[in-house]
Amino acid sequence: MSVTLAVGGGGRETEEFIKNFILPLFKIRSLGSVGLDDLEDGAAVPIGDNKYLVVSVDSYTVSPPFFPGGDIGKLAATGSLNDVAVMGAEPKALMDAIIVEEGFKLSDLKTILKSMSEVTNSLNVALLGGDTKVMPKGSVDKIVISTVGIGIAEGPLLTLDRGEPGDKVLVTGPVGDHGATILALQFGLQVKTLKSDVRPVWPAVKALREALGEDLKAAKDPTRGGLAMALNELAERSKTTVYVEEARVPIREAVKEYAEMLGVEPLALASEGQAVFVVKGDRAEEALEVLRKAGFEEAAIIGELRKGKPGYVISRTPVGGLRLLEKPSGELVPRIC
Amino acid sequence: MSVTLAVGGGGRETEEFIKNFILPLFKIRSLGSVGLDDLEDGAAVPIGDNKYLVVSVDSYTVSPPFFPGGDIGKLAATGSLNDVAVMGAEPKALMDAIIVEEGFKLSDLKTILKSMSEVTNSLNVALLGGDTKVMPKGSVDKIVISTVGIGIAEGPLLTLDRGEPGDKVLVTGPVGDHGATILALQFGLQVKTLKSDVRPVWPAVKALREALGEDLKAAKDPTRGGLAMALNELAERSKTTVYVEEARVPIREAVKEYAEMLGVEPLALASEGQAVFVVKGDRAEEALEVLRKAGFEEAAIIGELRKGKPGYVISRTPVGGLRLLEKPSGELVPRIC
Ligand SMILES: Nc1ncnc2c1ncn2[C@@H]1O[C@H](COP(=O)(O)OP(=O)(O)OP(=O)(O)O)[C@@H](O)[C@H]1O
Ligand SMILES: Nc1ncnc2c1ncn2[C@@H]1O[C@H](COP(=O)(O)OP(=O)(O)OP(=O)(O)O)[C@@H](O)[C@H]1O
Ligand SMILES: [Mg+2]
Ligand SMILES: [Mg+2]
Ligand SMILES: [Mg+2]
Ligand SMILES: [Mg+2]
Ligand SMILES: [Mg+2]
Ligand SMILES: [Mg+2]
Repeated sequence: MSVTLAVGGGGRETEEFIKNFILPLFKIRSLGSVGLDDLEDGAAVPIGDNKYLVVSVDSYTVSPPFFPGGDIGKLAATGSLNDVAVMGAEPKALMDAIIVEEGFKLSDLKTILKSMSEVTNSLNVALLGGDTKVMPKGSVDKIVISTVGIGIAEGPLLTLDRGEPGDKVLVTGPVGDHGATILALQFGLQVKTLKSDVRPVWPAVKALREALGEDLKAAKDPTRGGLAMALNELAERSKTTVYVEEARVPIREAVKEYAEMLGVEPLALASEGQAVFVVKGDRAEEALEVLRKAGFEEAAIIGELRKGKPGYVISRTPVGGLRLLEKPSGELVPRIC
Repeated sequence: MSVTLAVGGGGRETEEFIKNFILPLFKIRSLGSVGLDDLEDGAAVPIGDNKYLVVSVDSYTVSPPFFPGGDIGKLAATGSLNDVAVMGAEPKALMDAIIVEEGFKLSDLKTILKSMSEVTNSLNVALLGGDTKVMPKGSVDKIVISTVGIGIAEGPLLTLDRGEPGDKVLVTGPVGDHGATILALQFGLQVKTLKSDVRPVWPAVKALREALGEDLKAAKDPTRGGLAMALNELAERSKTTVYVEEARVPIREAVKEYAEMLGVEPLALASEGQAVFVVKGDRAEEALEVLRKAGFEEAAIIGELRKGKPGYVISRTPVGGLRLLEKPSGELVPRIC
């Protein structure tokens, strides 16, 4: 048996790999708050009264490393800080571990580092340290970067298990832009109408948290596996059925077209600058206003949590039928992020 | 201009790259304690009275991934926890980000994960989460792993700038075993007499800290760049001259022989299971006893800090001459760790 691309797809097979091969080996899996068993966006270390240090790590292997809307530096800094933000923590620090191929252009590396610094500088996030390794030519394709996001959260962490029947689901904007862009590039297609959405989501979390307090229940960044995976995780962890109105899910025409052309589920395409939120039902309209005012103008209410078969995501299609929106599985797209 | 292997060697060029290309880009470089500018083994986040959360990240690209004495899993878990330990922090948690090549044997991956878990389990360290990516065949050589070590320190942190003239330098055991082993394997040599030293150094730090309190000043793990790099960093940061008695530096015959055969400075070879300590001069003998009792039987006092030209490392060779022990530079060995 050997490792397949699907194990790294961020969908069903990734989850199974983690549950079957990683979890059972490790005796201790939390420090008293969110840890490995929770399969959340980040882990939390209690550091005082209702205060947590939130940490998250991701490796970024995106190919190509430069793409419309950003590059691997912007992506790597943003991604791990987004994982921290959707736990409800203000991003405070980043660490980066770079593995670059011998012969990589120094000017490209500088551009990538600059992109990374633009993200941290704009969020007043500190770069605390990192690691730099060079692999001989041919042993790694160009560059991969791992980053650690570190943040501080006061008060309830935005974990998916806090969702309850009656809560509404919002998204900050059109989904799938990043995934569609990289996919198209990998297929050698023109991507004039596509652009990665990579951007920090902390401003959205912050605004909602300030406005809604504890009525902001949960958040998740729909990266690998896209909205489909995020909603499935939400349904499972909150033990509800998630209903989505597909007509309300913001998604660009170009993304739909590329997804159709390439035969992939658009709702399984990764976003790198969006967040999914769960809010108390009666605060949903207010939350939408808050998001729009915070600069997330294309935000939308896309569905709700209901009693029903726990762990299912039901989608009402634009023509009115119902379909089960399943966890993405299979190869999807390697090196999307 | 393009990236050379030397940039990833952990010696002079790595340091220059970080100082010239990374530091200037980032506006914020600490959260009020040890941060990027300090170029220490880890960074520290103050979390209370004289209490710090210490974080460190490293990528491990070792080739081959299985070697006498360990594998990339053992190395990746140990390495980042050692960086945390030599800051004076008790290792509490680990996170891992795995990038594996499509087609890698699942049984090998399981072995690697098991090795990782043996390290964390033995130290009562939690695995809090991680990331799993698969790269298509040919785009990465087998497997690379990044790990984040997280620990808690109760003040003072063991930073190199605490060293003063009169302090003594100790090492936990023979240096260069890991580097020599990997180097020999890469050159296709028999390594029957060589074995990586990879092991956690926390027990040594803990024992010394308990026995010496504030008289334990500083610690460092002599990984890439070996003892030579570690002592140079110590001399620079403590603004002293470090004197070493080469005859007292524990180093195995086999390591010396391989180093000579391959034309490398043995004191520049990486250790992955040793720590260098700086202690108040009059506590050195006691420190040595403590280390031996804690299981580090081959520990030795190898030198001292003196007033003199700051930043220099002077070595008294076994035949009695003096030489300048310089920062390693050049290509050294890629993928040593
Ligand atoms: N190698 C691993 N070791 C430990 N935990 C892992 C590992 N890989 C993934 N996990 C855990 O599994 C969960 C899902 O990981 P995943 O990487 O899909 O989350 P994410 O970072 O939010 O998504 P993405 O990587 O697409 O940005 C997380 O809780 C993560 O900590
Ligand atoms: N890409 C990077 N970004 C930010 N800081 C970095 C980067 N690479 C290295 N550093 C910093 O430079 C210093 C030296 O790094 P280095 O990796 O040599 O230390 P180390 O981890 O103790 O050694 P080794 O990697 O050999 O185990 C550390 O303080 C580290 O945080
Ligand atoms: Mg996430
Ligand atoms: Mg992520
Ligand atoms: Mg390092
Ligand atoms: Mg170190
Ligand atoms: Mg290290
Ligand atoms: Mg991840």
